[in-house]
Amino acid sequence: MALDIRTQALKQPVDVAEYLFTRLHQIGVRSVHGVPGDYNLVALDYLSKSNLKWVGSVNELNAAYAADGYARVKGISALITTFGVGELSAINGIAGAFSEHIPVVHIVGCPSTISQRNGMLLHHTLGNGDFNVFANMNTEISCALAKLNNPSEIADQIDHALRQCYIRSRPVYLLLPTDMVQKKIEGERLKQPIDLSEPKNEEEREDYVVDVVLKYLHNAKNPVILVDACAIRHRVLNEVHDLVNKTNLPVFVTPMGKGAVNENHPSYSGVYAGSGSLPEVMDRVDSADLILTIGALKSDFNTAGFSYRTSQLNTIDFHSTHCVVRYSEYPGVTMKGVLRKVIDRVDVNKISVQPGPKVVNDVARNTDQSPTVTQAWFWPRIGEYLREHDIVVTETGTANFGIWGTKFPNGTTALSQVLWGSIGWSVGACQGAALAARDSGRDRRTILFVGDGSLQLTVQEISTMIRHNLKVTIFVICNEGFTIERCIHGKEAVYNDISEWRWTDIPKVFGGTDNKVATHQVKTKEQLESLLSDKEFNAADKIHFVEVHMPKHDAPRALILTAEASAKVNARDS
Amino acid sequence: MALDIRTQALKQPVDVAEYLFTRLHQIGVRSVHGVPGDYNLVALDYLSKSNLKWVGSVNELNAAYAADGYARVKGISALITTFGVGELSAINGIAGAFSEHIPVVHIVGCPSTISQRNGMLLHHTLGNGDFNVFANMNTEISCALAKLNNPSEIADQIDHALRQCYIRSRPVYLLLPTDMVQKKIEGERLKQPIDLSEPKNEEEREDYVVDVVLKYLHNAKNPVILVDACAIRHRVLNEVHDLVNKTNLPVFVTPMGKGAVNENHPSYSGVYAGSGSLPEVMDRVDSADLILTIGALKSDFNTAGFSYRTSQLNTIDFHSTHCVVRYSEYPGVTMKGVLRKVIDRVDVNKISVQPGPKVVNDVARNTDQSPTVTQAWFWPRIGEYLREHDIVVTETGTANFGIWGTKFPNGTTALSQVLWGSIGWSVGACQGAALAARDSGRDRRTILFVGDGSLQLTVQEISTMIRHNLKVTIFVICNEGFTIERCIHGKEAVYNDISEWRWTDIPKVFGGTDNKVATHQVKTKEQLESLLSDKEFNAADKIHFVEVHMPKHDAPRALILTAEASAKVNARDS
Repeated sequence: MALDIRTQALKQPVDVAEYLFTRLHQIGVRSVHGVPGDYNLVALDYLSKSNLKWVGSVNELNAAYAADGYARVKGISALITTFGVGELSAINGIAGAFSEHIPVVHIVGCPSTISQRNGMLLHHTLGNGDFNVFANMNTEISCALAKLNNPSEIADQIDHALRQCYIRSRPVYLLLPTDMVQKKIEGERLKQPIDLSEPKNEEEREDYVVDVVLKYLHNAKNPVILVDACAIRHRVLNEVHDLVNKTNLPVFVTPMGKGAVNENHPSYSGVYAGSGSLPEVMDRVDSADLILTIGALKSDFNTAGFSYRTSQLNTIDFHSTHCVVRYSEYPGVTMKGVLRKVIDRVDVNKISVQPGPKVVNDVARNTDQSPTVTQAWFWPRIGEYLREHDIVVTETGTANFGIWGTKFPNGTTALSQVLWGSIGWSVGACQGAALAARDSGRDRRTILFVGDGSLQLTVQEISTMIRHNLKVTIFVICNEGFTIERCIHGKEAVYNDISEWRWTDIPKVFGGTDNKVATHQVKTKEQLESLLSDKEFNAADKIHFVEVHMPKHDAPRALILTAEASAKVNARDS
Repeated sequence: MALDIRTQALKQPVDVAEYLFTRLHQIGVRSVHGVPGDYNLVALDYLSKSNLKWVGSVNELNAAYAADGYARVKGISALITTFGVGELSAINGIAGAFSEHIPVVHIVGCPSTISQRNGMLLHHTLGNGDFNVFANMNTEISCALAKLNNPSEIADQIDHALRQCYIRSRPVYLLLPTDMVQKKIEGERLKQPIDLSEPKNEEEREDYVVDVVLKYLHNAKNPVILVDACAIRHRVLNEVHDLVNKTNLPVFVTPMGKGAVNENHPSYSGVYAGSGSLPEVMDRVDSADLILTIGALKSDFNTAGFSYRTSQLNTIDFHSTHCVVRYSEYPGVTMKGVLRKVIDRVDVNKISVQPGPKVVNDVARNTDQSPTVTQAWFWPRIGEYLREHDIVVTETGTANFGIWGTKFPNGTTALSQVLWGSIGWSVGACQGAALAARDSGRDRRTILFVGDGSLQLTVQEISTMIRHNLKVTIFVICNEGFTIERCIHGKEAVYNDISEWRWTDIPKVFGGTDNKVATHQVKTKEQLESLLSDKEFNAADKIHFVEVHMPKHDAPRALILTAEASAKVNARDS
């Protein structure tokens, strides 16, 4: 086609798809998740040109989960689906990313702007000529949404969306019509990277908050620090570590904050989740006269059923959008700047340090006489098996609660979806996390803990792991179904049962050959001991698929408490 | 708890869940699809009380697909999911049911009204206290939506929604809070069944349309009847058959209308899809001076890329919401009443019957010398294998187009998702269809045709088939990936490849024992001949899982034409 006038005016014309993918590469994406569909096929041709790899998951929900996992490790991720059918299959994964503050760029290939204008009766539509329904569904679960319909606006739309995605750490939605993929836009602007820096706080307001914080901190008798999910998601872990190192205050993490701090640090004092905590942890936090919470997200499952007994009068909350000191709120004053100044200005001589409890992987105390692998014994034992810089992915269910009992080595990255809690998520997330680690050029083990019930939902993503030679270690907790649901309601109900699968053959049917996959079946403590001590297993240079049998009704103590609270909330009468 | 005043006023108090499930049973539901989640567990306890069986699919999308398939065979279906995570995993299936006019009752167990009022930070929420987001997403893909928040309104809400679901043949969405499940409502009204009768047309208007139709019909030289999807969905097949039998006019079906008429009827004349039709079919329809279309849904894939060459001046359209004669529209005059009066009043002596082409399963003409199983040969050969009252499920991809070449025995029910076209749908739909057949008490074979690429998305639903002992026959078309996408774009592109699976072991890992499952591998015409002639295979008294290898780039002629048209529409420049 002849160059139109607009294209002639461009200094360095570049196709829309190339512009978009180059931007993705600039902000750290190396592999793109998704499933092909005819409305995105032409765009997919551009991936390799921008040095992006195509993953090609087994279905869109798995792809979305994988993009979520990838972003948690790599900082940001991208997902490409097709209009209607593809994007809606993925939408639960996107809603989860919104809920959990994960930056995923969701690109949806859609019918051409002409087809849309003409209201054509195309496949993958509702048959009513309305092409806006699916985009509308995304408005409440995306922090930016752009329909790339006009070449003169597209570069701005993309740059704005990607910046929002990163700094707000939430999904964005880009609708890319087939006739826009190859439109020319200004490539010159690609020389200027997208500004991903966080907006600065207004200085006077920030200083005011810092002064208030320091006043309370300097006067406190036994303050503690409590680190939660949003400290990870909104990237203040450097500030957290600097604060801990400078003040030597005892530091706790919530379940969703697991992995945020070095658990071998002398100040690390354990997992706090109200009455779901170990007694010594609960005592120490509940009795603190000042709790500095960083990135708190006090959801039911993150607080063992809202069981904190702390007072807001003893609390300072640092958030990504505001700060709260006791009941004084400071909207628009974000934690990053405030924390940095607190670190710089704190007078360590005025800090009263009362140490917290010592944290250990308490295997000995949790070992009973029986050969059976119990939840109580398993999780501390896993703590001894883990090594520095492992990535640990835990599924909603017993794993998400059991992991409270695992003390991590330094540099462990923990992935869990405690707030959104979509079963099956961890399998996709594990694939994405392992890929992200590889894309970062670091040799890290990626280890998944998933229940048999949950794994059934998304099992075929193991095929993608095999296809891309991702050397993950998978522990399948075989306990005959949905133990977390049994704890809440229906202890023996048939609806909490699942079909029995031949787990050990699963990797093979999905293409796993012996040189790529090893399977293991573990029914006793001794067998697990032996496996966890095995050199080849520890080397993790192939996929290791481990069936671990545990009793049907055995659950971590924290889960039992949380489930009871949840059942009560569900049943409470109006 | 003490009975409150409201409960004392009830003549026959019944719990909300029991009311709802009793209503479902009354309108024909026998098995309920879904996945357990803590916001729906207490409700699930009520299923057996109302004589409903719980299916328990492997994930929610599969469950939604299965509910879709169940409704297509049994007339209506129900799906139960949990708030947020569960319902969003299912939403693509629900959107598909909306698009394709399938009546699915989607019941979502959600947090209690108290938790919602208090904006509690619960799991499965976005963490922002907004409990309306997911219901809002359903407004455009449901024909009725009710939040069951107030016991005094719930019975009305349920009855209204179920009536809408049935008569409009589209999904409805019911949000059931945990604290409402056991609230007492009036059970007395259960004695009066829900009115599922269609609203009658206004008589004078209806008579007017009938007169106009008859005028054109009596004057036409070579009229034809063309039956499409909505004739099936909006239940006018009796009218269709009566019209054909009385007039003896040649009757054609569209791809989405496949199965609507008895293909052994002397008037049956083939599948019409514009230039995608066989030449003699295209000639006959295109040259007709009057086409009576019944329930038309002229989407791209149903018309081989909008390739009709018929004129609206020669067309009378009968729809579920209106009729159109040439360019005269009659809104609100629905086809059922009009068709019945046309049948009653038509003067057969004034009908000019010019026969249509004879339809055969043309195996001989499509047999080549090579042993390779080709698409051209396969589909007519399948026509010879099918027997009366089989249920045939075809997947988006080569199967949906190949089946045009299969002439069905009488009583065949055909399921396909030509408009929505979500890959993987057919596997869930097949499970639901087979279950619906069993729930109807009829011995019918259920036969699935699915490509290897599509099957990967939803493969684990085979586990549900095994669990419930559903004796389906599954033909897996193994052709190395997404052939339909290759036809549109990316003939050799990596993104259209899939991983290689060990297909024959798939049923075994999902719990299929030898007495429940037989697997077959077919690589030549001879092997297929032998299998299709095998008595045990034809008896279908267990699951038969057949791997049929076909060449990667072999596609039915109709698919090639449609894909070319689709690629053109996608690329068309503004």
